[in-house]
Amino acid sequence: MLNTLVNLDKTKKDIESVAITDNIRLTDDERLIIIDQVALPNKLIYKEIKSLDDAYDAIKKLEIRGAPAIGIFVAYAMYVISKQYEDLNYEEFCARFKTASEYLNSSRPTAVNLSWALKRMYRVVVENYDKDSREILRLLKQEAINIHDEDIDMCLRIAEYGLSLLKDGDGVITHCNAGPLATSYGTAQAPFLLAKARGINIKVYADETRPLLQGARLTSYELGKAGVDVTLICDNMASIVMKNGWINACFVGCDRIAANGDFANKIGTSGLAILAKHYGIPVYSLGPTSTIDLSCPDGDHIKIELRDPEEIKNTWYEKPMALDNVKCYNPSFDVTDHSLLTGIVTEKGIIYPPFDINIRKLFDEEFI
Amino acid sequence: MLNTLVNLDKTKKDIESVAITDNIRLTDDERLIIIDQVALPNKLIYKEIKSLDDAYDAIKKLEIRGAPAIGIFVAYAMYVISKQYEDLNYEEFCARFKTASEYLNSSRPTAVNLSWALKRMYRVVVENYDKDSREILRLLKQEAINIHDEDIDMCLRIAEYGLSLLKDGDGVITHCNAGPLATSYGTAQAPFLLAKARGINIKVYADETRPLLQGARLTSYELGKAGVDVTLICDNMASIVMKNGWINACFVGCDRIAANGDFANKIGTSGLAILAKHYGIPVYSLGPTSTIDLSCPDGDHIKIELRDPEEIKNTWYEKPMALDNVKCYNPSFDVTDHSLLTGIVTEKGIIYPPFDINIRKLFDEEFI
Repeated sequence: MLNTLVNLDKTKKDIESVAITDNIRLTDDERLIIIDQVALPNKLIYKEIKSLDDAYDAIKKLEIRGAPAIGIFVAYAMYVISKQYEDLNYEEFCARFKTASEYLNSSRPTAVNLSWALKRMYRVVVENYDKDSREILRLLKQEAINIHDEDIDMCLRIAEYGLSLLKDGDGVITHCNAGPLATSYGTAQAPFLLAKARGINIKVYADETRPLLQGARLTSYELGKAGVDVTLICDNMASIVMKNGWINACFVGCDRIAANGDFANKIGTSGLAILAKHYGIPVYSLGPTSTIDLSCPDGDHIKIELRDPEEIKNTWYEKPMALDNVKCYNPSFDVTDHSLLTGIVTEKGIIYPPFDINIRKLFDEEFI
Repeated sequence: MLNTLVNLDKTKKDIESVAITDNIRLTDDERLIIIDQVALPNKLIYKEIKSLDDAYDAIKKLEIRGAPAIGIFVAYAMYVISKQYEDLNYEEFCARFKTASEYLNSSRPTAVNLSWALKRMYRVVVENYDKDSREILRLLKQEAINIHDEDIDMCLRIAEYGLSLLKDGDGVITHCNAGPLATSYGTAQAPFLLAKARGINIKVYADETRPLLQGARLTSYELGKAGVDVTLICDNMASIVMKNGWINACFVGCDRIAANGDFANKIGTSGLAILAKHYGIPVYSLGPTSTIDLSCPDGDHIKIELRDPEEIKNTWYEKPMALDNVKCYNPSFDVTDHSLLTGIVTEKGIIYPPFDINIRKLFDEEFI
């Protein structure tokens, strides 16, 4: 099932030749710069994060979003912030670091990568109690770079495995945003960028992805900038696009994969997968193996976050589109049944059915 | 297949007890008043239509929309406008009427009910060449009232037949707007109003219906005002709502029904029907028999109107959600295959499969 990929340097150069991959950057003079995703697509604004409050606000206001991107960002942010603690003794350094870390962690409590990256950074501080603060700072910087590099490596492998499923002239439908803005080099949308760099023509249909419009604001922007042939549609147009015979595959991201292959992703994914099945179109979920949760037996055990009705009625609009007293149901994710899924594209290869057996096998192999 | 309904007076009173049914009104002193649908849901503005330009603009700007509502509106509008011609001789009256009618017909050329109602009104003028203008005006007023009354009669019957499919406690999902604002008393959404008036609890889930948001702006408004238990969702949430077990039936309108039962309706309808089939939920299309086009053999013969990409990228928003150079595909309708359809609810009863045979039978019966 799993192949070893070679020459990821070429994959990296290819994606960099077309995509915006500087959404999170520690400059040579150690300034932390991000692309403000809220200003997109109208303005491309690079914003410097100087303080703990800057970092908190950037996450809270969704200037930085996408689970992997948030993880990378807080790692760099904690390094930059803790440089202010250089003159403190270890106990004070550690205490200040912990407080700052807990504050950042409260910016979006449901984002798993946020707490995961913060824990990794804090462990560096704890494990190096015998080092001076200068050395701890050096190690913190290295850990942030490691987190970033690991994400890049994962994205490049997923891009290659994903592209192996496509051929010149294919049409692919995608949902939400899982490109370089949301990660380092992209997951579900990375194969399109790689295809572009290699002269393979893929026609992408991007769902606008209501209510937060990540498909319109970010995916159509990223792919358009890269020169990928992208067409924006409303979510309710997926059926006619498939019926027209324009779609050969459906590529979506994943936020959490259960042990049986059921997976949670942005709201609308399950509907898209049902339509694809109806029209005989394969559905691939693309994401790192870290999103596979073996402790979760199936989709029924995945809790769905409910968000503010204002996102449906009011966000982005000049004036509200429904009255205050109108009830809304606004789930952020839905669960797609594994029976609708053709394959899971991970950094370790493509997992095919039976998912329960092959997912387990993947994890067992790791411990051989 | 067809039942005779009795006591439509009670149906009318019931719907009037909860719904806004004065969206088009000729007052006792003969002023034509409409509800400005563009101002909804934020403001309920009654607007007087005094001139030909007023009438043209009202249609063009979508202040009045919904095929049946447009038909009723132009009939009244032509009556009010032609009152200015009272002192003209027949030839001049007829010429002025024809010019005004053609101008109004150009306001939205694809709306079938617009030209249909204008033709009916013009025929009154042509057929009564031997009458004086005062008498012609009386007959024009009567024809407009007839067009309105016929639509009311049709809506009331559809409301009763539709309600016969529901039971207390049912959840129903609906798409776009086919309530009293779009017609006289409503088609696809009329059964919910009738249920409310009769103390039958129906929980309605209204798709917001991108890109023009008729579900958010109009359906959630109309049903909410009537006290119907309505929950607004984004179009891409239909799958999770069905999976949650909240939906017992899917009620949608129809713009054109082919001889085999394939039907065109607002974009997104076919996707909704596919989801419903996946989850084992019955799908009903509600509309008058006048939308059945026997000259159209199947859905492949229905031409789909493509609309301006700006509706997806820009309409309603504070600032554009995608760049100017991003391509959009923006079909206004899609075609739902008859294999996904449980029944067609018309003013003459509910048509069940096999649709090709039963639709033909319905029309044959008319000519017995």
